[in-house]
Amino acid sequence: MNAIESLIAEFGRLPGVGRKTAQRLTYFLLKSSREDARRLARAIERVVEEVRVCGTCGNLSDLDPCELCRNPRRDRALVCVVEEASDIPAIEKSGNFAGLYHVLGGRLSPLDGVGPDDLNVRSLLTRLREGVHEVILATNPSVEGEATATYLHRLLASTDGVRVTRLARGLPVGGDLEYADGVTIAEAFSGRREM
Amino acid sequence: MNAIESLIAEFGRLPGVGRKTAQRLTYFLLKSSREDARRLARAIERVVEEVRVCGTCGNLSDLDPCELCRNPRRDRALVCVVEEASDIPAIEKSGNFAGLYHVLGGRLSPLDGVGPDDLNVRSLLTRLREGVHEVILATNPSVEGEATATYLHRLLASTDGVRVTRLARGLPVGGDLEYADGVTIAEAFSGRREM
Repeated sequence: MNAIESLIAEFGRLPGVGRKTAQRLTYFLLKSSREDARRLARAIERVVEEVRVCGTCGNLSDLDPCELCRNPRRDRALVCVVEEASDIPAIEKSGNFAGLYHVLGGRLSPLDGVGPDDLNVRSLLTRLREGVHEVILATNPSVEGEATATYLHRLLASTDGVRVTRLARGLPVGGDLEYADGVTIAEAFSGRREM
Repeated sequence: MNAIESLIAEFGRLPGVGRKTAQRLTYFLLKSSREDARRLARAIERVVEEVRVCGTCGNLSDLDPCELCRNPRRDRALVCVVEEASDIPAIEKSGNFAGLYHVLGGRLSPLDGVGPDDLNVRSLLTRLREGVHEVILATNPSVEGEATATYLHRLLASTDGVRVTRLARGLPVGGDLEYADGVTIAEAFSGRREM
């Protein structure tokens, strides 16, 4: 396979990138300066070389423990449980959470053969003995995410002195009631608050 | 900037890739095997190292002259003029053309400051002296592509013994008359053929 064909094939392996997009990306790089194209190649190499899984929380980072776990200003009594490391930047960007994280590395999904033993649950239990007061379950509001949250809630219920909470569900800010699905509206009603 | 942020930024420079897609691609590579991620990096490096512009036709290829120009089975009397090297694979895939190509490297576009001197026109005139019988203008059916074709037609009209043709316009195969635009339907009428 020549160089162009082989790059088209490699781009085509990325999620959401079909044959035509892979071609467009390849010819874009061919029209870019060599320096620009090389910067992308080097950024990929760097991620492969430098990024590791944090041994404490499971976050992906250049450091182990990651920059969040080693930050003395983060509240160690609060642990937010997420499915994937890629969920962390979204929460960090919201600027509303100053505790630590715990990455499960997936969600319970019997159909895909993912059970509790495939998730980082044991290390979560160990961490809870280190002065944690609240575990916020921030798995996705999907069927699997809910099942995972329910499972963790049951598992943690017996841990003394640890509050287990779940992120609120309701209408997304800036969303439109008219186009919201029925389940979301039902959640918004049942979770309504005093003004 | 850490390794993850820097890869997100590099992916974000690609056409049609916004911040969210760049994040998704980055975390996809982080979840892939190191070998898979490295293969993409190496494919980019290889394209940078190996691909060059064919000195004869302007095609992008590992070889100079490119594999099309050095193929003795291609008809040297036929030259198909395209805007970009990326147009060539689409024509090759159609399997209907066995001549050579000539890549202009763009289209006339006064608004973007692209004039005849910015395109590979001079080398086209030189090639025409080498036994070419027909030049097929395959610039895009856009305003700039048409203007470029008109310009080339005038320029080549004075060349003795060279026929200048233009790709047919009309309804795309598999398209729907109901949804075709008026200009395309008008072209389909004026270009109608005996059955």
